[in-house]
Formats: sequence, structure tokens, C-alpha cells
Amino acid sequence: MENIKVFGSDEMIKTIQQKENPAFLCVMSNTAVSKIPKITGAGSPEFTSYTPALDAEVILKDMALSLPNIASTDADELSAPSPALLTKATIDLLNIPFIPINAGLEVTPKVPYVELGGVPGGDLREGVGVKDPQIIFENAKKYAEVLSKCVDHIIIGESTPAGTTTTLGLLVALGYDAKNKVSGCMVTNPHELKNSVVDAALEKNNVKPGDLADDPFKAVEIAGDPTMIAIAGLMMGADVPVILAGGSQMTAPCAIVKALDADFNFDNICIATTTYVANDETANLLDIVNQIADINVFAADPLLQNSDVVGLQNYARGNIKEGVGAGGAIFYAYIKGVTSPEYIKKAEEITEKHF
Amino acid sequence: MENIKVFGSDEMIKTIQQKENPAFLCVMSNTAVSKIPKITGAGSPEFTSYTPALDAEVILKDMALSLPNIASTDADELSAPSPALLTKATIDLLNIPFIPINAGLEVTPKVPYVELGGVPGGDLREGVGVKDPQIIFENAKKYAEVLSKCVDHIIIGESTPAGTTTTLGLLVALGYDAKNKVSGCMVTNPHELKNSVVDAALEKNNVKPGDLADDPFKAVEIAGDPTMIAIAGLMMGADVPVILAGGSQMTAPCAIVKALDADFNFDNICIATTTYVANDETANLLDIVNQIADINVFAADPLLQNSDVVGLQNYARGNIKEGVGAGGAIFYAYIKGVTSPEYIKKAEEITEKHF
Repeated sequence: MENIKVFGSDEMIKTIQQKENPAFLCVMSNTAVSKIPKITGAGSPEFTSYTPALDAEVILKDMALSLPNIASTDADELSAPSPALLTKATIDLLNIPFIPINAGLEVTPKVPYVELGGVPGGDLREGVGVKDPQIIFENAKKYAEVLSKCVDHIIIGESTPAGTTTTLGLLVALGYDAKNKVSGCMVTNPHELKNSVVDAALEKNNVKPGDLADDPFKAVEIAGDPTMIAIAGLMMGADVPVILAGGSQMTAPCAIVKALDADFNFDNICIATTTYVANDETANLLDIVNQIADINVFAADPLLQNSDVVGLQNYARGNIKEGVGAGGAIFYAYIKGVTSPEYIKKAEEITEKHF
Repeated sequence: MENIKVFGSDEMIKTIQQKENPAFLCVMSNTAVSKIPKITGAGSPEFTSYTPALDAEVILKDMALSLPNIASTDADELSAPSPALLTKATIDLLNIPFIPINAGLEVTPKVPYVELGGVPGGDLREGVGVKDPQIIFENAKKYAEVLSKCVDHIIIGESTPAGTTTTLGLLVALGYDAKNKVSGCMVTNPHELKNSVVDAALEKNNVKPGDLADDPFKAVEIAGDPTMIAIAGLMMGADVPVILAGGSQMTAPCAIVKALDADFNFDNICIATTTYVANDETANLLDIVNQIADINVFAADPLLQNSDVVGLQNYARGNIKEGVGAGGAIFYAYIKGVTSPEYIKKAEEITEKHF
């Protein structure tokens, strides 16, 4: 496992290697936060309504259906395609069942998906996060209970434009020291903008950092997004090992779960991301995780500097870094015996078709 | 298997007995046909909008959520509860994953479900069946492809008020001799009403019986319902054995599949229903099946005359007979070793709670 950095125990790698029946979920939602200029690189502000739907479509149907092309990032002049393509490489190589989950989308994908009954999140600057988070949570929990009867481990990615800002909002409302520590999909991380949006969310609700430490549903209502509460529900309903395939955004559901059940056992949960996130000098994923609980983190090195495709090379230059479960997907490919050259070859084939 | 009548080969029973990883789907939709007075017993005309959602809720959450109570039939003064309760008995006894599928509902359930992108069906008397049936079909096909990677056999039930009328419409449009042969959920089968609705559907579209033998999508558009085209898609996408858990209504997807692919291999497909449907003197399931293809049919005897609960006894008096996959569920319980007394005891516990 030379291309995987282990933070904590590697016990779960061995557990997963012995299991043969996975499902890869992608929890999707939109929020009005992604419409704030310069806050995300996951497409232009208007485009972000379509980003998750296009991600699900390209993975399941090998084509964009809701718009002519998938999302790409042009931030800092380093153009790169949606990380959905990196995830698709693993999905296709290992023939993994891929299940999109709608936690609260503006635009739903033109493929089959699981509906959790949520609506898109609001604009945190107006003090509005997620409506009725309990509904999303309960439906997600029930779905994971059912799915755990079908498969023996679950990988959970997400597609949620501007999701690191809502992650910051949730963490601050719960009292975590997270400002300037969440990662982002652009090379330059707009911490001041993210912090100001989160400050506004709390101020509008007369809430101080930490005030909602015991009320994570309220924290999601004022400063979170539909994806995080859905993933928290999936984690609490699952009866099989769960790989949280993502970076900073996966700390939000972990913090919610911890707040709902202080004794929650994280032994069957891990966070798997890219080294691009783990090494991100503009952020500190491990510090946030360590504040929450003893959760094992794995960082897979995608080695995309070795690719011949410029759009993939730009990941190694710090663009995008993670998303749609890409880091966890690469981690999963490695622990299931796929070599880096094999993985990159497949990612290149897919990228040349869609970018 | 003394309580199962076999029409054809029993090979598939042996196949299923060796498999251990099932999923039970319930494909749900509404149509305006169920609002025609006296055409269905699945709740009063207005109530039928809620019938499928309540069925899914009671099975997954053990309570009605969208209205205070589940559907029941009072036709012919023999009151009986929704067959969802009979299905639930098997689901609970054998701990089977249950997945509701929305093919085109007016009221969606307050539980997680799979969305196929359909809308409710129209009023056949106005010549309107299903809008964009290809979308539902393609999404269902893709979903079955994915699900086949998770489980090793699939059981498909349905909840579609007035679905025998739309089944008749589809079959007649495709040229089958089906009038006066579809079953129904009331003791007295309103064939004249069903026939007149179907005749109107064809006349409004200037279509004669059999004109659409080669265009099943068009037949669904003018005289079908969203459920049948979804199940046809599931059948064509599935890579594992499929039990069609239902009576007359399961002939419609079989006829669609046959029309789309004359060489389709039905060896891994069977229809499993109750003896109440198979023996229904007002109908002729086997005759319809035999017109379509060489499809094995199994009829399980629920033996509900042995129950102490009047609402269940009324099934044995010819009320309801089938629905929500009940016949297939009882068949499945029997072939997996559940005895009739064990099954009835569980069905009684559930019925006493919900009816």
C-alpha cells in the first residue's frame, strides 16, 4: 500500500479487502451558497445547479444528459474535469454498483436514484440552511438499514457544490475550531469569504459558535446542507463497514453523528480521501477529524502528475483535489489490487471522452 | 410444496432455494383510471392516490404516515386490509430488503424510495395512458442492472390501483384476447366497465385491437400504466432470476418484453401469485400467460380460511386476492421453509396492529 498514507489504524483496510459485495453511493444536494461568486470552482454559479446531476449521469450512463457537458473547473487557469471521472474509473474497473442519492437537488439526474425527501439548502448569509433535516436523516437511516441487507460494505461519496462552506458552518455551530481548516476545490482557498458566510449564518440566528453543540439538527437547519445530514443518517443506519469517500466534507456527518450519540462506535467507519486534500497547505483535515473522534483516515495518492492528460495533471497542481468520492474510489481501487498505471489508464480513457 | 400449484416447470423453485441474497421491490404508480367509480376496491376513488404510498410506509416503517390508516377494501361487504400486510409478513419473517420504486405516483411515500422519473398515468377514457414511457423503461432497466450486482435474485411486486384495467388496455392494444380474463380485487369483477374503458382508450386514438403489436411503447402511452413499463425495464435489465409477484397485472410487462424482444428468454422469470387469483372464476390468468410465452406460473395457497382474523378470512372469500406482491411473498415464504401456520401467525400479528 505504498500509495496510501494511513492516519490511525490500517485494520479497516484488511476488513474491506476480505469483503466482496460493495455499493458505492453518491449523496447529492444543492444549496444557494454555491451561487455566491468565487466561493466554489465546481462550475460557474448558475452551472452548479446541474453539477451533481451531471456527475451521476456520466458515471451511470457514460454521458451528460441534463446539459451537453459535465462540470469542470477553470479556477486559477488550471482547467480540470469533475472528479466524477476519477470515481468512474474505479466504478468501471471493479464493476461496482453505483447508486445516486438525492438529499436535496435543484436539478435531479436523468438516471434512477434514491429519493430521501429533502429540498435544496438555503443561503447561509440569510441564516437559512436545511428545511426539515430530520426527514432526510430518518429516510437515509432507513435506506442504509435496507441496503445493509444487500451488500457487505458501503462507500459513500458526495456531490455538493460549495459543500466545504456548509461544512464549516455546521462545525462552527457545533463548536469546533474549523475556520481556515476546511479544504476547497480551487488552488487558492477563499477562507475569508467562507468564514464571513458562516459568521452571517450564525449572527442571523443569534447563535454563537458552540451554542448548538447538543442540537445538530438545528445546526444543520441554520448552517448546513442536505448532504451532511443524509450521510449522518446513512452512517447510523448502516450495519456494515462504511468508507466515507471524501475530504473536509466528510467531517460534517461525523460531527453530527457524534453529537447525536456521544458513544457512537467509529471502528467500522473510515474517511478515505486523496493526498491532495490530506496535504493541502491551505487546510487541515486531520486536525478537524481529531477534534471529533478517533476516526481512521486514509489518503490515497492519485499520482496524476504521471498522466499524459493535462486536465488530470492539474489535479496534482492542487486543482479540485477531491469530490464525488474520488479519493475513496482511488483508495478502494488500490486496496483491491488495481495498480496506479492501470487506474490512470482508465481515468485517461474516461477523461478523453468527456473533457 | 403441497401449498403451491405449479403451472409449467418447478426448476426455478430449486434455483431460488439455492440463493440467499434477495431484494423485494414494489413498483408503484397511480392513474386517473382508479378515480372511475366502482372500477377498483383498493380504497375509495379519492383514497387510491394514497394507497401505494401507505403500502410502502407500512411495510418499511410499520405505520401509515401519509394518512392515518392503510387502504382497505369494503367491496361486497367483505372488509379486508391492503395485501401490503400479507407481503410484510414474509418481509419481516425472512428479513428481506424491501425497496419501493416510484414509477409515477401522485402521492410519494414518506420513506426512501427509488425514483424512475415517471408521472402518474392518465384517464384511458380520454385516450391518455403514460407520458414518456421510454424514460421510465430506461431508468428501470439501468436500476436493475445496478441492483443485479448487489443481490442474486429479485422479487417484484406492484401497488397500482385499477391496474387490471390498464393491463387489459395494454393487452388488447397489443392484440391479446384478454377481455373478461383479467382478475380484480373485488368478489364481483366489473368486466363490462373495464372493457368499456379500454374500448374508449383505443377508439380515442383510432387504434384497433392488435394495431400496436409491434409498438409496445405506444400501447403504454394510450392504454397502459407507469408500473407495467417500469417492470418491463426491470425484467430486461436484471441479470439475476426474477419472481414477478402478482397476478393479472404481471402479464402486461411480460407482453411488453415479448413485443420488444421476440427472442427474450423467460427461463429466469416466473409469475408467482395466490391461488385466489389462479382459481378466480371471473378471470383466466393462465390463458393470458400462455398467449404471451412459455412462462412458469406458481400459485401459493395462503390458506387464510384458517385464520382467526376476519379481515384475513375475507381473502379466502374472494376479496382482494392479490397485490403489493402478496402472492409472490407467500410463495417465497413457503419455498424458503416457512410453514403456513407460521406465516398466518405473523400475518395476523401485523393485521391486528394495522386493521
